[in-house]
Amino acid sequence: MRRTIINESIDLFDKKGYSKTSIQDIVNSIGATKGTFYYYFNSKQELLRDIHLSYIQELLQEQEVILHDSNLTSKDKIRKLILLIIGKIRTHGKSARVFTREIRHLEEEHIQYVNSIKREFRLNFQKVLEDGVEKGEFRKDLRSDIVTFGILGMVNRSYNWYNPDGEVSEEELVDIYMDIIINGLINNK
Amino acid sequence: MRRTIINESIDLFDKKGYSKTSIQDIVNSIGATKGTFYYYFNSKQELLRDIHLSYIQELLQEQEVILHDSNLTSKDKIRKLILLIIGKIRTHGKSARVFTREIRHLEEEHIQYVNSIKREFRLNFQKVLEDGVEKGEFRKDLRSDIVTFGILGMVNRSYNWYNPDGEVSEEELVDIYMDIIINGLINNK
Repeated sequence: MRRTIINESIDLFDKKGYSKTSIQDIVNSIGATKGTFYYYFNSKQELLRDIHLSYIQELLQEQEVILHDSNLTSKDKIRKLILLIIGKIRTHGKSARVFTREIRHLEEEHIQYVNSIKREFRLNFQKVLEDGVEKGEFRKDLRSDIVTFGILGMVNRSYNWYNPDGEVSEEELVDIYMDIIINGLINNK
Repeated sequence: MRRTIINESIDLFDKKGYSKTSIQDIVNSIGATKGTFYYYFNSKQELLRDIHLSYIQELLQEQEVILHDSNLTSKDKIRKLILLIIGKIRTHGKSARVFTREIRHLEEEHIQYVNSIKREFRLNFQKVLEDGVEKGEFRKDLRSDIVTFGILGMVNRSYNWYNPDGEVSEEELVDIYMDIIINGLINNK
């Protein structure tokens, strides 16, 4: 039931917006009562927060596994981290889009907590770039903070246009991104 | 007065959201009457549309100028197009962020019109990449449609984090982006 409430809410928040969706709307559309809603969540705020929190906490845990795999080169790690994000579009695309749009409705402490996890994810990514520079895999003159924003921007933006059921598979999309990021567009022949 | 209404609305839409901001809220906060509002706009919808339309139409016109400059290489054009977008963060950053979040409140025909202009901008960018491939400036194996999404994603996402008054100037940011895009991260030494 908790999962049903979450899934239905994401659909409603997506269509009508968070402000215009009431708890009554949510329970009506799944044929439940408000009592059921309050059994799982204290408020609409808490629901919105939980939707996103479970998503980014999971992302961070999976990131840690990649970071600590000592068999991978820095380039391998970058590839796996990008695939991690792209791979979630299929399962979490709509909730990520809803959350980005509605985050301002959360209480300040929740916003700060969510942002601190996002920041940790970003700084971990940046660290992989810096390790790659140190090991000589990447160029010495890399501005790792801005390059991290750039790569994550490119990758995260895919949530707005990429269709995992279209002609380009998740793996292919990641290969194309990796090729620009690692080799650039220049014709070296 | 038209400009005052627009600026104040952007602030209110940003803080409270489009749905929760009434025309009364807007006129109250600038000390005007509803009559004044309706002299300039037929509805709140029209205001939201106009905010964004003037921005992207201007962007498209400025893009055309760059596209038709026959003195520029493809690489030069890419650089100027990226600078065009980054340069608007200072002046149009907040309105662009509000619009992205609130576009679903527009009527379908307006959404389609806005999206058709965005699509034109994107396809023009893609054409510059393809011309560059044809002239031998860029690699032959370029998947130009996806690379365009990637580059524009990276650049557009800057609206969410880049502060034009911070330590990195607009020109420097564009240089860093261009360096990844053109040369990649790999250490060739």
